[in-house]
Amino acid sequence: MHYGFPMNKPTATPRYQLRGRIWIEGPEGTFVGYGRVILLERIREHGSITAAAKSMDMSYRHAWKLVDSMNRQSRTPVVSKSTGGRGGGGTQLTPAGEQVIAAFWAAYEDFQGYLDAQSNKLDL
Amino acid sequence: MHYGFPMNKPTATPRYQLRGRIWIEGPEGTFVGYGRVILLERIREHGSITAAAKSMDMSYRHAWKLVDSMNRQSRTPVVSKSTGGRGGGGTQLTPAGEQVIAAFWAAYEDFQGYLDAQSNKLDL
Repeated sequence: MHYGFPMNKPTATPRYQLRGRIWIEGPEGTFVGYGRVILLERIREHGSITAAAKSMDMSYRHAWKLVDSMNRQSRTPVVSKSTGGRGGGGTQLTPAGEQVIAAFWAAYEDFQGYLDAQSNKLDL
Repeated sequence: MHYGFPMNKPTATPRYQLRGRIWIEGPEGTFVGYGRVILLERIREHGSITAAAKSMDMSYRHAWKLVDSMNRQSRTPVVSKSTGGRGGGGTQLTPAGEQVIAAFWAAYEDFQGYLDAQSNKLDL
């Protein structure tokens, strides 16, 4: 059977699309962006800045600087260190750190929807 | 006369603000972003890629590559060359080039409003 009007015709990819990047600025500049939020999630996963940095192919020094920047700009620190114990201590995400992750992904998701909607409005 | 409730109290700067960057992607990647649109405006102003590049402290080679990328991705070229005449010819913006500039600034302005609105919604 043949239909003259294909109902499930795949949507053509539009020629132009709006793309973008967002981040949250704090008192000293960048507070959190895509890379920093991934770093926080890796710290939560690995319980250590060293292991988190390694998993992202990032130097410990750079990771530490990013964490320090977030801690300084947050009302309360985003990670905390526990010392001693069997594993010699580690680094944990604080509730403030969890809140930062959630706030960034909420903004990020909304932004993806915005980009899609605006792509359709491009006068090109 | 003294009012207990200051009507013109300046708004406090919020601790966190959403910031971002947008660009328009085409078939080959970036089609136009902030830097490219400024370059197009300078070409319109100076009537030459060489002079436009110079005014932005950009190499001619780099400016030419950006213009070439836009020309290849646009349905019709964004600039055209006129040869001969008293000044030895030059480069002019086409109507397609004007449309690209307008479309980018329209998206850019809308985006600034979006960032302001979303900054107020940050749960931080």
